[in-house]
Amino acid sequence: MLFIADNLQITRPSVARAFAAEDASFFIELARSMAKAGADAIDINTGPLPKNPRKAMTFFVDAVQEGCSLPLCLDTVNPLAMEAGLARACHGRPIINGVSLEPSRFKAMAGLARRFDADIIAYLLTPEGRVPSDSDTRLAIAANLFAGLCDEGVLPGRIIVDPICPPLAWDEGPAQARAVLETLRLLPEVLNFPVRTVAGLSNLTSGLPAPANARPALQSAYLALLCQAGLSYALLDIFCKEPVNVARACAALLKPGVFSWEIF
Amino acid sequence: MLFIADNLQITRPSVARAFAAEDASFFIELARSMAKAGADAIDINTGPLPKNPRKAMTFFVDAVQEGCSLPLCLDTVNPLAMEAGLARACHGRPIINGVSLEPSRFKAMAGLARRFDADIIAYLLTPEGRVPSDSDTRLAIAANLFAGLCDEGVLPGRIIVDPICPPLAWDEGPAQARAVLETLRLLPEVLNFPVRTVAGLSNLTSGLPAPANARPALQSAYLALLCQAGLSYALLDIFCKEPVNVARACAALLKPGVFSWEIF
Repeated sequence: MLFIADNLQITRPSVARAFAAEDASFFIELARSMAKAGADAIDINTGPLPKNPRKAMTFFVDAVQEGCSLPLCLDTVNPLAMEAGLARACHGRPIINGVSLEPSRFKAMAGLARRFDADIIAYLLTPEGRVPSDSDTRLAIAANLFAGLCDEGVLPGRIIVDPICPPLAWDEGPAQARAVLETLRLLPEVLNFPVRTVAGLSNLTSGLPAPANARPALQSAYLALLCQAGLSYALLDIFCKEPVNVARACAALLKPGVFSWEIF
Repeated sequence: MLFIADNLQITRPSVARAFAAEDASFFIELARSMAKAGADAIDINTGPLPKNPRKAMTFFVDAVQEGCSLPLCLDTVNPLAMEAGLARACHGRPIINGVSLEPSRFKAMAGLARRFDADIIAYLLTPEGRVPSDSDTRLAIAANLFAGLCDEGVLPGRIIVDPICPPLAWDEGPAQARAVLETLRLLPEVLNFPVRTVAGLSNLTSGLPAPANARPALQSAYLALLCQAGLSYALLDIFCKEPVNVARACAALLKPGVFSWEIF
């Protein structure tokens, strides 16, 4: 399992402040820290960037790429910002985060993936943008979305499916969490392709008051289960050591070959 | 998943000293602490007790039962000590830990299980006492041992199978760890019975120098995988919070029903 660090989010006050102040050094240092903590890629979650989308995304991409040489995961619904970021990304293959069956952005994002030969995250959401209620619905959406992207000229190997982990605080949260595991197990057979997958962990424990030790324990436990179900990438807080180490341990335990303590 | 605390081990210097000094208060306090930490049962690992086995086991059992009202898991190869412990156990159904196909103790331990209507842990070891090298061998041993115990009059519902988790430091350690997971998944079908299972975690990370954060992460990860494979009981250090909380989280995530933060 590989880690995409989700620490650069415009919704975080420190990130928003540094962006408003055009403080590139903040983002260079943040990127450096994420790489040092063991990130395999950096998610740049800029939000929709209604003002100067090209200039803003270029600012983020340049700063992060100055701080580290990891691939970028460009996380915005704004196609102009996405295009600017893809044009600027220079370390490995960038990831478009992301596309769904929602018609408003499907063609634009699929077109950018094809044009830049980028990886693209495909969210298993309904065309109305809702989280599906069970595994069967997720798999049906996956089949549609996968076929739709291929029809747009995206290579199957560029697609990374996100089955959408819901907050456990939702009424059906735990059942959904299990549906995500089932979806991951069945996807390769349903798509008849060993598709890569990604799951975002940050929402899992949001929305409920929890004891201090509950969040890392729940994230660790669920990451281990995701790993066992074959997840390729986890999108998470790379500075939260416990889940990261448990996921590393899990991957090492499940992978045939010589075990090494050097994973930590 | 339920927890059997393994903290009372005669091989630990503090335990050996307190036993030599006949310091019952040490064991009363230890039992109290294990119960408070969330143990569901207490393993009393006395070793073989060559001298005064009945008196010694009675001392341990009385002290632990004064400290808490949890069921006991009596962990000795000495049938005289085992018998004395079973006769003294008064909180719930005691567990005999344990029996294997090794002929020297098979009849004695099976006989005690039948006589006291106790639970009994069945180790998946070869008749020579060796750890099997793969899942198929473990399953063949399980079938023999299960049938053998039933022939001795032990009820199937009293048997708890231990597939034997090896140290990861062994050459085949990680492969064995995966064989244990496979064994757990296949056991109910092979035995045609929803047999309970137990795994001891303490050996997993022994024998190799490891970074400080590696041990709890590996134990947490493996516990999550064991939980996913259907393990009934984990025998572990109940004071090591991280793996215990991850196992609790995992069990809560996998169990249908309403999720509660109160598991922590």
